[in-house]
Amino acid sequence: MNTDSHPALLGSLNSTAPHSEVINFSPGPTSLPKAVEERIAGVFNQPGLTSLALSHRAPEFLEILDHAVMKAREVMEIPDDYDVLFTHGGGHGQFAALPLNLCHDQSDVATYVVNGTWSTRGVDEAKRYCQVHSIDGRDPKTGDFTHFPELTEENIDPNSKYVYLCSNETVNGIELHRLPKLPESLKHIPLVVDASSDFSTKPIDWHGSGVGVLFACASKNIGHPGLTMTVIRKDLLGEGKASPLCPGVFNYTTNSEAGNLWNTPATFNIEVVGFVMDWIEAQGGVYEIELRSIAKAVAIYDVIDSSNGFYGTPIENKALRSRMNVPFNIKGGDEEATNAFLIASWEKGMIGLRTLTPFGVGDYLRASLYNGVTVEEAQKLADFMRKFAAKHGA
Amino acid sequence: MNTDSHPALLGSLNSTAPHSEVINFSPGPTSLPKAVEERIAGVFNQPGLTSLALSHRAPEFLEILDHAVMKAREVMEIPDDYDVLFTHGGGHGQFAALPLNLCHDQSDVATYVVNGTWSTRGVDEAKRYCQVHSIDGRDPKTGDFTHFPELTEENIDPNSKYVYLCSNETVNGIELHRLPKLPESLKHIPLVVDASSDFSTKPIDWHGSGVGVLFACASKNIGHPGLTMTVIRKDLLGEGKASPLCPGVFNYTTNSEAGNLWNTPATFNIEVVGFVMDWIEAQGGVYEIELRSIAKAVAIYDVIDSSNGFYGTPIENKALRSRMNVPFNIKGGDEEATNAFLIASWEKGMIGLRTLTPFGVGDYLRASLYNGVTVEEAQKLADFMRKFAAKHGA
Ligand SMILES: Cc1ncc(COP(=O)(O)O)c(C=O)c1O
Ligand SMILES: Cc1ncc(COP(=O)(O)O)c(C=O)c1O
Repeated sequence: MNTDSHPALLGSLNSTAPHSEVINFSPGPTSLPKAVEERIAGVFNQPGLTSLALSHRAPEFLEILDHAVMKAREVMEIPDDYDVLFTHGGGHGQFAALPLNLCHDQSDVATYVVNGTWSTRGVDEAKRYCQVHSIDGRDPKTGDFTHFPELTEENIDPNSKYVYLCSNETVNGIELHRLPKLPESLKHIPLVVDASSDFSTKPIDWHGSGVGVLFACASKNIGHPGLTMTVIRKDLLGEGKASPLCPGVFNYTTNSEAGNLWNTPATFNIEVVGFVMDWIEAQGGVYEIELRSIAKAVAIYDVIDSSNGFYGTPIENKALRSRMNVPFNIKGGDEEATNAFLIASWEKGMIGLRTLTPFGVGDYLRASLYNGVTVEEAQKLADFMRKFAAKHGA
Repeated sequence: MNTDSHPALLGSLNSTAPHSEVINFSPGPTSLPKAVEERIAGVFNQPGLTSLALSHRAPEFLEILDHAVMKAREVMEIPDDYDVLFTHGGGHGQFAALPLNLCHDQSDVATYVVNGTWSTRGVDEAKRYCQVHSIDGRDPKTGDFTHFPELTEENIDPNSKYVYLCSNETVNGIELHRLPKLPESLKHIPLVVDASSDFSTKPIDWHGSGVGVLFACASKNIGHPGLTMTVIRKDLLGEGKASPLCPGVFNYTTNSEAGNLWNTPATFNIEVVGFVMDWIEAQGGVYEIELRSIAKAVAIYDVIDSSNGFYGTPIENKALRSRMNVPFNIKGGDEEATNAFLIASWEKGMIGLRTLTPFGVGDYLRASLYNGVTVEEAQKLADFMRKFAAKHGA
C-alpha cells in the first residue's frame, strides 16, 4: 500500500476504530467532554426551539447568556471588577481588537513577548494599530522558540499601554502554568493574555497577576468554533478609550454596555460554553481540572523522557512544558517511523495527532490534551507509545 | 391578570401552544425550515464526530466547506468571477470590513443609500474608514424611512469606490425585489449590497446589477448566528488593495487566498448553511422560494389592506414592500389592542411578532417570513389577523 495516501497521513478524523473508541487529540477545534456532547445532542432531541432558533433578545436566550457568564465567573473565579464578553472573529479577531481597544492612538506603545507562533501572529496584527516593542523569546543559539523570557524593567517599555503574552503556545508547546508578575515598578501596566488553548484548565490570579484582558477562542477547551471569550478589567473600558479606528464589533466598551447584545452574538455557541462551565463545576472545579491536566501531560512526557531518545520533545525546561499540547517526534523525525506511528494509532482510534496546519513546527506530532480528553484516554496514548517504541527499536 | 407581565409581551418564545404548532415570526435569529432542523438533529444522533469537533484542516471538514460553497454557488447562480467567503462578526462586521477592503485610504469616497436602520448603522461604521457621501432616503415631509431613492448621476459621487445599499431594510420593511442598476456613466462603480435579510429568497443578477460585494449574516434565511456569507467579485481582491488598517480576519484577499481557512472558521455554522442550500435546491431552487415568499407576503398585506384601517403598514408603495418583514400596527398603535393581539397570537403558537429590540419603529409589530416559515404558516397568521380584526371591531 502506498502509505502517502493513507487517510491517517492526510489528517483524516474518520478512524476505522469503533466510534466509542475514538480519542480526539486534535489541537483544536476538537471534541468536547462526552457529557457535554451528550447534553448538546439532548438539546436537539427535545421538542421546542433550540438556541439556534432563539432571538438573541428573547428572555429564553437571555437566560442562556446569563447562565454562561455566571458559570464562567464562578468556575474561573473572575472578580466583579472584570466584565465577561463574548467576542467575534476568533483569536485573530482579538489580536486586532486588543490594540484597537487599549491604544487610543497609533503612536501608543505595547510590549509583546514573542515566544511562538501565536504571539508572532499577535504582533503582526498589532503592528497595524500601535508601536510594538517586542521581547524576543527565541533561543539565541538555535533560533527556535523553546523558552519564555523573563519580564524585567530592562525589556519592558515603561510607556506600554499593556504587556502581551500567550500563556500557552499551542504549536510550540510552551505553557506558563502560572501567569508571571511584572516587575514592581511596572505593575500598573495591564497584562494581556492569549489563553486560547489553556483557559479553564488552571486557576488564574486575576488581581495578583495584574490581568487587564484575557481571551480564549472557544474551540480548544470551552466550546466550538465561532466564539471567543474575552475577560476585561472594567477600568480599561470607557467612552472614548478605544481607538476611533476600532470596528464596532471589536469595541469592548460598547459591547459591554450592550450586555453582549451590541449585535447578534453566536447564540448556540454561547449555550455550549455554559454547558462546559457546568461540566467543569460538576467535575469539582478548575483545581480538579488542573490535576487531571497534569496527570494527562505527565503520562505522555514520561513515555517520551524514558524512551532513550526514541521520542523527542522540543521543550527541555519541564516547568514550561505545555500540559495542553505535547509536541513529540519519533526517531528524530524519521519519516517512515512517523508514518507508521500515525497509521497504527489512527487505526486504534487515536486521531488528530497531526493536522494539516500551515503552522506546524518541523516533524513534530502533537498530542493535545484539552478538556475533551480524559486521563484514561491520555494513558491509552501513553501505553500505545510505549508499545510502539518497544516494537520499533527503542 | 396584569397583562404587562404576560410572557407574550416580554418577547417570550415559549408559547403555551403544543410545539408542533409553534410558528416563529421572529426577525432573526429564527427557526430554519423543519427539514433542515431535522437534519441538524440527525447530525447529533449519529455516532462519530460532529462538525463541532472537527479540525478545520481535516479532510472531513473540507468536504463540508466545499459542499456549502458549491451549493451556494449553484442555488444563487454565483458566477465564477466571484468568490464565496465565510466571514466573522455578523452584519456589523461587514459594515466595517467593506470600507476597510474597498477603500485603501481614509480619503477615499463611498456613496451610501440611507433608507433605514441598517444602512444607517452601515454608515456609522464606514465613517471611521472613508469619506461617506450619503443619499438620504427619508421622506422629506415626515422624516420617516418609507421609500428608496432613485440612483442618479446627480446623487452618486462619481469618485465613489462603491455604492452601498441594503436590499431589505429588516426593521423598516423596505425591500428591493430586484437590485437597481447604476446610471450608465457610473456603471464601473461596484454595487455593495447588505442582503442580510433577503439573501436566498430571490435571484440576483450579479453581472447585470454590477454587484461588487454582497453579504448576508446567516441568521435570517440561511443559517444561525455566528456566521456571515460574503460574495465578492474577484477583481476587487488583490495584494495591497485593502487598507493597511484592515484587521486580518476582515481582509477579503487573505481569507480568499487561504480558502476560508485564514483562521478558524465557524465550522458547524458552515455545515448548516450547506444544509439550507441543499434544502433550497430540493424545493425547486431560488425561483420557487421567491414564489413562496411572494405568496407569504401577499397573504399578510392583503389582510392589512382590506382591514379598513384596523391594521396599518408604513410602506405605501407596494413595489417596495418587504416580503421578508411585514411591519403592521393595530388600530393605529392602540396599546390595549396590540397587547391583546400579541397575547392571543402567542397562545396560538405565533411567536416573535414583537422582539425587544432597540431598533423597533414606533408601535409596529413585525411578521418576518423567512425560509423557516411556510406558505401555510403565513396563511395561518393571515387568518388569525382577519378573525382578530372582525372580533375587535374592524
Ligand atoms: C493560542 C492561540 N491563539 C490564537 C489562535 C488563533 O485562533 P483563531 O483561529 O480562532 O483565530 C490559536 C489557534 O489555534 C491559538 O492556539
Ligand atoms: C439587513 C441587516 N443588516 C445587518 C444586520 C446586523 O447583523 P448583525 O447583528 O449580525 O451584526 C441585520 C440584523 O438584523 C440586518 O437585518
